Amino acid sequence: MKRLLVIGIGAGDPDHLTLQAVKAIAATDVFFIVDKGEVKHELVQLRLDLIAEHGRGPYRIAEARDPDRDRDTPAYTAAVDDWRSRRSLACETLIRDELGADETGAFLVWGDPGVYDSTLAIVEEILQRGEVSFEHEVIPGISSVAALTARHRVGLTQVGQPVHLTTGRRLAAWGATADDVVVMLDAHCSFDGLDDFHIYWGAYLGTPDEILVSGPVAEVAGRIRSLRAEARARKGWIMDTYLLRRMR
Amino acid sequence: MKRLLVIGIGAGDPDHLTLQAVKAIAATDVFFIVDKGEVKHELVQLRLDLIAEHGRGPYRIAEARDPDRDRDTPAYTAAVDDWRSRRSLACETLIRDELGADETGAFLVWGDPGVYDSTLAIVEEILQRGEVSFEHEVIPGISSVAALTARHRVGLTQVGQPVHLTTGRRLAAWGATADDVVVMLDAHCSFDGLDDFHIYWGAYLGTPDEILVSGPVAEVAGRIRSLRAEARARKGWIMDTYLLRRMR
Repeated sequence: MKRLLVIGIGAGDPDHLTLQAVKAIAATDVFFIVDKGEVKHELVQLRLDLIAEHGRGPYRIAEARDPDRDRDTPAYTAAVDDWRSRRSLACETLIRDELGADETGAFLVWGDPGVYDSTLAIVEEILQRGEVSFEHEVIPGISSVAALTARHRVGLTQVGQPVHLTTGRRLAAWGATADDVVVMLDAHCSFDGLDDFHIYWGAYLGTPDEILVSGPVAEVAGRIRSLRAEARARKGWIMDTYLLRRMR
Repeated sequence: MKRLLVIGIGAGDPDHLTLQAVKAIAATDVFFIVDKGEVKHELVQLRLDLIAEHGRGPYRIAEARDPDRDRDTPAYTAAVDDWRSRRSLACETLIRDELGADETGAFLVWGDPGVYDSTLAIVEEILQRGEVSFEHEVIPGISSVAALTARHRVGLTQVGQPVHLTTGRRLAAWGATADDVVVMLDAHCSFDGLDDFHIYWGAYLGTPDEILVSGPVAEVAGRIRSLRAEARARKGWIMDTYLLRRMR
């Protein structure tokens, strides 16, 4: 039976890797890398570094191009109608053609595979199509949320209080509907104007480029906005997240 | 300057430890253990095992008794605040008396220090009292939430959707007010009757005693309830958590 590992590798610091992930990488025969072909080469390189450090025995790396690069090909859009389905077909091909019977393949996923990542849904889609069969296992990782709160040395939760994890798009549409809100995937600084809140913001968490800012939104929003724009222009990409906590 | 590390050690599996946590344990001179003096001896023992395996050089273990908490009062937050203040005094004494200048002390925290744990708030309280000074650092860990979703091989979040992290007490009082809800600290199976939801439940995650159940609440609630009662009676304690996902 083929075996597939979905390995959470943490938020950016190579030392976020768990011992379980180290062992999983060491047990992997084929690492699958789906290259977005974008400016985020650094993210691919960090994964290759982890593989080089923790891979054991003769392992292979099998790469596929992200289907987004081929969006002009009519055959793709005719066959499937959304990015994930196209991506799942690319992954299915990798698993079918590059992974031998009784071999172990792995996807290395930033942060925790459960948090705003498509890999688990893609694996589910492949299994439901039933064209290729394998057993699979998920290795949890340090999410950017855990990295964010640790770096700010602040709790994600307050005593007995709930916390809401949402997206920038939703925050922009509905505002902060809870006292403690974590926001991910926000390209537009949707915290602007939420002056009842304290913000704990972080970008490139765990990496040498890490930027941390915290303070009342009214005081630090402008600084975050300019730091974010500057860093994004300099590096070509940005990954950031933040916690909003209503001030009392 | 004294240095204090708050180290997340993961949800129960010794291999949840990150490389960062391994290094932090190796760098620690004094491990602080606040023993609840209860039936959860296993949890203390697991910590001692991690220290024995990853501690380096001559290290010491400094223990204190945890103050009792009034679990019968309806004033939950006030009771927790009171308990936390007394606990912070016990911890302050440890840091003052047991940690030398230029030494590194550490608290080992289950899961992630940011998620429903009192240690960060206690450290904040000690620093605010100003009787003892130190610098401190937080090492993120695999939370029971990340462990739960990994073991069920399911995403915490759905595409573009929010998720609500809350307590059993709140779920019992207000019901599930979102489509995706993670519940922690639930002593009363408050999911009972939430028949619109699928539940992914786990206890003793990452340990040899791990129990996993998933399915529509209406179908599996009874089974979870009896498994939970049986395991709790057998072991004397239980730690469980679950994800509720509204069925479509």
